[in-house]
Amino acid sequence: MRMYDMIEKKKKNIPMTTEEMKEMVNAYVAGEIPDYQMSAWLMAVYFQGLEEKELTDFTLQMAHSGKMIDLSPIEGVKVDKHSTGGVGDKTTLAIGPIVAACGEKVAKMSGRGLGHTGGTIDKLEAIPGFKVELTKEKFFENVNQIGISIMGQSEGIAPADKKLYALRDVTATVNSIPLIAASVMSKKLASGSDKILLDVTCGSGAFMKNKEEAVELAKIMVKIGEQAGKETVALITNMDVPLGKFIGNSLEVAEVVELLNGNGSKDLVEVCVALASNMLYLAKKDKEASQTMEQCRKMVEKVIEDGSALRKLIEMVEVQQGDISVIEDTQKFAKADYYYDLVATKGGYVTGMDTEKCGIASMLLGAGRERKEDEIDYSAGLCIYKKTGDKVIVGDTLATLYSNSHETFSRAEKVLREAYEIKEEQVNEEKLVIARVTKDGIEWY
Amino acid sequence: MRMYDMIEKKKKNIPMTTEEMKEMVNAYVAGEIPDYQMSAWLMAVYFQGLEEKELTDFTLQMAHSGKMIDLSPIEGVKVDKHSTGGVGDKTTLAIGPIVAACGEKVAKMSGRGLGHTGGTIDKLEAIPGFKVELTKEKFFENVNQIGISIMGQSEGIAPADKKLYALRDVTATVNSIPLIAASVMSKKLASGSDKILLDVTCGSGAFMKNKEEAVELAKIMVKIGEQAGKETVALITNMDVPLGKFIGNSLEVAEVVELLNGNGSKDLVEVCVALASNMLYLAKKDKEASQTMEQCRKMVEKVIEDGSALRKLIEMVEVQQGDISVIEDTQKFAKADYYYDLVATKGGYVTGMDTEKCGIASMLLGAGRERKEDEIDYSAGLCIYKKTGDKVIVGDTLATLYSNSHETFSRAEKVLREAYEIKEEQVNEEKLVIARVTKDGIEWY
Repeated sequence: MRMYDMIEKKKKNIPMTTEEMKEMVNAYVAGEIPDYQMSAWLMAVYFQGLEEKELTDFTLQMAHSGKMIDLSPIEGVKVDKHSTGGVGDKTTLAIGPIVAACGEKVAKMSGRGLGHTGGTIDKLEAIPGFKVELTKEKFFENVNQIGISIMGQSEGIAPADKKLYALRDVTATVNSIPLIAASVMSKKLASGSDKILLDVTCGSGAFMKNKEEAVELAKIMVKIGEQAGKETVALITNMDVPLGKFIGNSLEVAEVVELLNGNGSKDLVEVCVALASNMLYLAKKDKEASQTMEQCRKMVEKVIEDGSALRKLIEMVEVQQGDISVIEDTQKFAKADYYYDLVATKGGYVTGMDTEKCGIASMLLGAGRERKEDEIDYSAGLCIYKKTGDKVIVGDTLATLYSNSHETFSRAEKVLREAYEIKEEQVNEEKLVIARVTKDGIEWY
Repeated sequence: MRMYDMIEKKKKNIPMTTEEMKEMVNAYVAGEIPDYQMSAWLMAVYFQGLEEKELTDFTLQMAHSGKMIDLSPIEGVKVDKHSTGGVGDKTTLAIGPIVAACGEKVAKMSGRGLGHTGGTIDKLEAIPGFKVELTKEKFFENVNQIGISIMGQSEGIAPADKKLYALRDVTATVNSIPLIAASVMSKKLASGSDKILLDVTCGSGAFMKNKEEAVELAKIMVKIGEQAGKETVALITNMDVPLGKFIGNSLEVAEVVELLNGNGSKDLVEVCVALASNMLYLAKKDKEASQTMEQCRKMVEKVIEDGSALRKLIEMVEVQQGDISVIEDTQKFAKADYYYDLVATKGGYVTGMDTEKCGIASMLLGAGRERKEDEIDYSAGLCIYKKTGDKVIVGDTLATLYSNSHETFSRAEKVLREAYEIKEEQVNEEKLVIARVTKDGIEWY
């Protein structure tokens, strides 16, 4: 394999063989292919795409470029869950305890946030003392003992993806559906779960700005998962407005506690219940053939109602050495020193939100990272009072901004104000769970 | 200007501003833009092209990235001539002396060959003693004294193009019409001539494989030249068969001498006369308004017929310290130690030639360079007896291969045999000079 020829092939849309794909990925990880050739290949893929077989080959080779996690020391069916990224997206923190409370095993490795999207690991670290770095043995032990553990993504997972992603990030080749699909799925395939539930977000706060793109991405990822021998299901969910009421790390943990207390905001509850039901269904369907999605949903609702999901969250925090007092009473979370109310200067209805901008505002306040090395202010973030569809009167507080650094407000406020579109006529609320994609096709909701 | 944004712009086909183009080219030459970003930009340009204004900006900026040659110490109108590359293409060696013999100034800087295409400088160096490296002052002096000098391309011309071409060469982004146009024209604009004559070759031995592409490239280059304030004319010429009878350095010099002696092969004479007439016309038209192309052609034919063009070649060789005895008697050129006749094993007509393969066969024999650092065997090459349209009987010699290295024959013979297509039915000969492109449009022949 000469890399020049591989670039030429993609330019001309000629499929690469399995052997070529394997050699290319391995040679790149080994440093034998220079970045300037790989970035030309990536840009050619951006324009020409990858065929089904090429894409599976590419993904599998990236998965096998590092360690393949073996979850067999954990009994039962392990279902992984992955979101393509969102703003205010705290679903993993909620559905992990829910599914564990329903008796299934949740062995979840998560990542950190970058830019406008948050990361589950950062949110967990907002809980004082919470340990996200566990040994493999401790991780397995926790899951076998209490049914759940969430830890930071292991270092050696899919190093080819890590190296390629870093290159894509500086060469404007991130937003390619096959490349996104391969990146996500390579990590999922290396993570050792039996089945995969994908939450493909779409809208102004997501990578995929519209439904069509989200469905395309979902279909491709489901196909890759199934071809690699893992049952894979994707829900398409709405990220055109921030999910729930809060954006920011301790703020979102507190919001999850509220949800598990039965007081979650409607949109967040709807998405979490849908994801948890699907995760549960995937875990149960093979061993209990009579199990229906409806029964799974009832179980999910029950463990929220009877408090057992919240107890499971507390149990997990305790086992991972976090301070459970902040979960038992979220008022005990450290508060930001400063707050600022964004007030409506115009009346009407919120007709749209640029959710990416909400995420950026939160990041600017200190809740996220502009660069990888930035530190996080766990109590910073936003409380969003008015969202798309809501009536607004001049003087209403649209959102409250929290930060420990007073000088962050001016930029953040400017960005957040731009995120709101306020007009005279009300718009219809959009569906939150838009579709479900399986190997058998798409089910629209 | 952030390079990331420039890649994004080209991906989305949004034009770059003059200022952005300027900053990008300068930053790349200064080493402030990494190759991996530039190669992604180049691949995006491959797919999206460049708009007219962007392309002119890009070309001018590359031209100005190094020294701009000032030819004003030479009196009269200086017309530069450039060929987009060919096999057996010795036109510069012929038309330089012809135009100088007609009384116009020929101040020509030429390049070396690489791969299957030859270079004028290599051919001149086949003449023992001939000096291609001259000081600027000596070059000007020669042209003012005898009307002609051909020297190696100055080092500092368009360094941006040099750096970009090296990157394109390893990232499969050479064959992009706007990038080829910008590369050629940046060097021409920096070379200081008043007018430019382009020979855009097309066919199996050229970069442009068909007429449509060649015309597109010619139009773009003419537009760039005119926008930069230099009258530019392009001839589209046929490179579907090797030009003339010989490929190889001293072999081609000898062929040019034959042509200037009035014994040139028909195709070579036709192309050289057309190019020389156009070059002469460009030089004369402004100062002698009544001058017609037809009169120019007659002058060209006359200086061949009366031997003055050949005397001009001898004069140039003498002034540049070459051994004129090999020009006066081409039998005195050193002969290759070995030759091999490629014999037809099948009868019929030659219906097509892969001219690139002829060039590669010649390169393999030692007449060209596979890599930049390779040395040239000046007496190696090919004599082509049978070309497209010719009748072939089994046992006929199709071509003779010459080399000083006996072991080169097996590979070269194999490649050359593959270059011939022999079938039962004769095909029509194609036009040699296909079209003429000026700012006013295309004239088809």
